[in-house]
Amino acid sequence: MTDTAADLLAGSRRALARAITAVENDAPEAEAILRAVHPHTGGAHVIGVTGPPGAGKSTLTDHIAKAFRAAGERVGIVAVDPSSPFSGGAILGDRIRMGDLALDPGVFIRSMASRGSLGGLARHAADAAALMDAAGMGVVLVETVGVGQSEVDIARAADTTVVVLVPGQGDGVQAIKAGILEIADIFAINKADRDGVPQLEAELNAVLDLAERRPAWRPPVLRTVAKTGDGVAELAENIVRHLAHLRESGGLESRRLARAEAELLARLEEGLRRRVVAAALPPERLAALAARVVRREADPYTLTAELLAECFAG
Amino acid sequence: MTDTAADLLAGSRRALARAITAVENDAPEAEAILRAVHPHTGGAHVIGVTGPPGAGKSTLTDHIAKAFRAAGERVGIVAVDPSSPFSGGAILGDRIRMGDLALDPGVFIRSMASRGSLGGLARHAADAAALMDAAGMGVVLVETVGVGQSEVDIARAADTTVVVLVPGQGDGVQAIKAGILEIADIFAINKADRDGVPQLEAELNAVLDLAERRPAWRPPVLRTVAKTGDGVAELAENIVRHLAHLRESGGLESRRLARAEAELLARLEEGLRRRVVAAALPPERLAALAARVVRREADPYTLTAELLAECFAG
Repeated sequence: MTDTAADLLAGSRRALARAITAVENDAPEAEAILRAVHPHTGGAHVIGVTGPPGAGKSTLTDHIAKAFRAAGERVGIVAVDPSSPFSGGAILGDRIRMGDLALDPGVFIRSMASRGSLGGLARHAADAAALMDAAGMGVVLVETVGVGQSEVDIARAADTTVVVLVPGQGDGVQAIKAGILEIADIFAINKADRDGVPQLEAELNAVLDLAERRPAWRPPVLRTVAKTGDGVAELAENIVRHLAHLRESGGLESRRLARAEAELLARLEEGLRRRVVAAALPPERLAALAARVVRREADPYTLTAELLAECFAG
Repeated sequence: MTDTAADLLAGSRRALARAITAVENDAPEAEAILRAVHPHTGGAHVIGVTGPPGAGKSTLTDHIAKAFRAAGERVGIVAVDPSSPFSGGAILGDRIRMGDLALDPGVFIRSMASRGSLGGLARHAADAAALMDAAGMGVVLVETVGVGQSEVDIARAADTTVVVLVPGQGDGVQAIKAGILEIADIFAINKADRDGVPQLEAELNAVLDLAERRPAWRPPVLRTVAKTGDGVAELAENIVRHLAHLRESGGLESRRLARAEAELLARLEEGLRRRVVAAALPPERLAALAARVVRREADPYTLTAELLAECFAG
């Protein structure tokens, strides 16, 4: 076992920070650390918090963290920004505001932003959550800004997903269009001191009513005001209730199996890509084939079929 | 050759629409169509238009299209929305406003939104641009909302990339942070009737000055007001000038070679994924391995290494 992994398991915050950095940078030691800590994961309740920009997710996440701290849990927060480079600065700025939480030794906060592929970010966030889990955090909050597929990928790493919406902005309709209902275990209507709350509630409930089969868990639609903390206690109760439901119904096991399947597939694909593509398409050959495509002597579809045939000819 | 491909090459708008739909849905006939039209592509000037939400890209794109129409070109527009499900509706709504352009038989407009992977969307947009190219559009505008990696991927499919920014919103700083300078061939400061234009110009120029080597093409920083059309003629002139520069410098060839390399790699990876993953990890085996991971009897890193060894032992 690496020193970093051993120190992390012994509760060192510095080792945890170092391990997450290794994961984020795809450093050579990252895999050894993840491998070593894997037997010590699975204990944390991983909670995803997602929704559109400006919904107040950061502040709400802070309040949820405090509620779990008050219940004696150690809490990790992974704040993920897979969104536009144009808004990146502002969102990371938000994170810096959490002064009092950041001083609490029972809380570990890490921001992650994307410069590279969104797929990589989802994996890094999941790995960071696993490291916090291994380091003894009973609750890990993964906060992400909604940008479509990557938000769904990040949500898939959570046991419980809270979707935060704001009244009066058509969020309900957009969420329904985007199929965001499917990933929500709990809805928080934040900024619930504004106009339009009953309408948003009605929209969400209408769609939940329409769901064909009666699900064992109907996502509750809650009101919160992150600025004041109103409604946060009830939200935290529902999060705990959802975990209990998952445990009783076998849903926790099936979600974690699905997650492990997705992770195995993703890692195998990545490994294949590195090895086979490098073997079948060394740079000179790739350049030569590309030149034929550009000169219209060959098309990329036929070339791909030929390359695949070659890979599988053995 | 498929009927759709033949009709598309003969100039049928219905065939073009059908072909793009096939590509968008990954329909079985999509590859045959793309293969058949490939020798007839490469003639269009593909222009990417990107920038943050609310910069007025749609309106500016319309004006650029009209400028090229006035010069006698047939124009295709691919309007891509890779952004948040929460804003999807509004952006597609914008597209519908282009009444007069939509009635022009020399213009073909297609909107594409993302439900699936962002990577897939970038490929679909590039394929749609190629289909418009094959259908005889001399200019293809690919308009996309900036959301990081996917915008960069989409921009890579363009010969010329216009980055649209707005004064007074810190766009310059954010663009610099996000490395968006690297993909810009031309900057359009839109809504240039607002305050803050000189400051944004100064920011962009300062960064362009700092660029270490003297590039053969220094991205011009232009002012536009999309609402009135002010500055659009100069923007269109610079777009044409950039293409001429690319042709003279050999940059067009090298960009298209890089694009063909990226496409070959992406298609080979996709093909490998489908075939190898299906062979190495049939559903029952995947489920059994995932169960071992969840029970902490094995970790995904070791399992992946074993699976890779197996794939390459054969």
